[in-house]
Amino acid sequence: MMHRLLGDVILPAFENEFLNQNHDGAVMELGGGVRHAFTTDSYVVKPRFFSGGDIGCLAVYGTVNDLAMCGARPLYLSAGLILEEGLPMEELEAVLASMRAAADRVGVSIVTGDTKVVDRGHGDGVFVNTAGIGVIEHRQTISPKAVREGDVILLSGDIGRHGIAILAEREGLEFESSIVSDCAPLHGVVQALLDSGVELHCLRDLTRGGLASSLKEIAVDSGCEVTVRESDLPVTDDVRGACELLGLDPMHVANEGTMIAVVPEADAEKALAAMRGVPESADSVLIGTVGGTGSRKVLLESTLGTTRIVDMLAGEQLPRIC
Amino acid sequence: MMHRLLGDVILPAFENEFLNQNHDGAVMELGGGVRHAFTTDSYVVKPRFFSGGDIGCLAVYGTVNDLAMCGARPLYLSAGLILEEGLPMEELEAVLASMRAAADRVGVSIVTGDTKVVDRGHGDGVFVNTAGIGVIEHRQTISPKAVREGDVILLSGDIGRHGIAILAEREGLEFESSIVSDCAPLHGVVQALLDSGVELHCLRDLTRGGLASSLKEIAVDSGCEVTVRESDLPVTDDVRGACELLGLDPMHVANEGTMIAVVPEADAEKALAAMRGVPESADSVLIGTVGGTGSRKVLLESTLGTTRIVDMLAGEQLPRIC
Repeated sequence: MMHRLLGDVILPAFENEFLNQNHDGAVMELGGGVRHAFTTDSYVVKPRFFSGGDIGCLAVYGTVNDLAMCGARPLYLSAGLILEEGLPMEELEAVLASMRAAADRVGVSIVTGDTKVVDRGHGDGVFVNTAGIGVIEHRQTISPKAVREGDVILLSGDIGRHGIAILAEREGLEFESSIVSDCAPLHGVVQALLDSGVELHCLRDLTRGGLASSLKEIAVDSGCEVTVRESDLPVTDDVRGACELLGLDPMHVANEGTMIAVVPEADAEKALAAMRGVPESADSVLIGTVGGTGSRKVLLESTLGTTRIVDMLAGEQLPRIC
Repeated sequence: MMHRLLGDVILPAFENEFLNQNHDGAVMELGGGVRHAFTTDSYVVKPRFFSGGDIGCLAVYGTVNDLAMCGARPLYLSAGLILEEGLPMEELEAVLASMRAAADRVGVSIVTGDTKVVDRGHGDGVFVNTAGIGVIEHRQTISPKAVREGDVILLSGDIGRHGIAILAEREGLEFESSIVSDCAPLHGVVQALLDSGVELHCLRDLTRGGLASSLKEIAVDSGCEVTVRESDLPVTDDVRGACELLGLDPMHVANEGTMIAVVPEADAEKALAAMRGVPESADSVLIGTVGGTGSRKVLLESTLGTTRIVDMLAGEQLPRIC
């Protein structure tokens, strides 16, 4: 429904050449012949503090990752806070400290901000918006439209951890061990890929809608068929168990520090080596291939040898996941 | 309290060279030797639709004005929407149409966006965040710190209309005629001032805290004493009457399309002429002068010849005004 809301109501209202890039952020020239990326996200995750992160670091990494997916080096962030009356001051301080620590880890500065307070019962503790500016220091065109037949799909790590960590926390579920969100910055992974000299066709972080949505968007925007092999998809036993229990497909569950890179097959080994050299993507694997144009489908080859079509979910599988 | 919250908790958490400019936005170089401004604001105004505007155009003009106050030409905006479940689709469409019309009036593009939905009772219809990027195409340093003894203070129009329009709507107050918010873009006023060739020391739009807060911030940041004459302050009869009824001082009431410019006395006439040539500031007047350093006070010379000290209010006079 969010996808339809965006497609039918919001995007048409603002139609312009940048917005129609259907990307994680807009890329434009701000003068001086340099390309920049600009992006924004609001964060309403519930609960605010969860295993592996909190709304503060999520708000920094989420926007940093959107800039990184545009192939940009993140430079500056804004922070807009909407506080609900009655929010304990210690919670606000904890969120701010987490934002600051996350910004320091990435090397970005939060340079401008705004705070609003709404009356009790008209907000939910704290909502955070961040917008980000990054600089593009290369000549590559990174976009789903650049994806073509013969490309391969590289995944930076195991999938589904963020969504399951949030859900476990929210529903008070107990698993054998705590499932920790993958919440992490991906700018280092992208920088390593750029430095390696490989041709980058598309980068996507697997947030709302998970791996399935990202692959489907790439298939639709490139016009190509995308095939992934189920046996190549890394999912931890914990996450797999939780998904079975909850009736969820890990391909649809959100991540907050996991991405795919689409590169020509000839660059696959070089790209994987670059990704594996960065802690946040040490377990990168090749999960699929891009086929011919026409079908715009995403196909999943199961371990049993059958093939099924992967689609986006119509509703939000897990609301307030980020 | 918001001022203290910002000063004691939020600004120290993010401390860096840009944020400490204590300005409506951050100014930095993004590469190519060009200076840019970057700013953000969240909008939670209640009610969402009011006489003279709505949350949509407010979210565009508010951020455009913050860029303009940095002396920047607004270029690009982001839009982050937080929708409460159950918001009627027509209201969303009306807000989006208003944002689009406002952006078109200013000549900025909304290039990137994000939408989140929160469960009923955990938001309030729609909250809008906008962040903006503008380019600085001159060499002037516009900052409260640039204000000095001998400067004069120019006001672009009558004060208090936005706050009273919102309050009237919210409380169901009836006045002889409807009080219309001054909600408007000020980039044209700033451009006219820049084009006129006057030396610009400081620009401020008179939003939260009204004229009083802006003058006090200038007095504190410049170290100078600021004196304004009550008889020179334009306030419409409607607003004056409403303020008397409600026990409010128009100097503390928020505006959304009214600003002050601080310029050297020698440039006063030229600056006023430039401002009066723009529809949004056709009624510009000189309201005060900047005195010597030391006291950091704002003094109001009353029509009776007495002088009183103007200060910021400790609490928010009117919550959710923008």
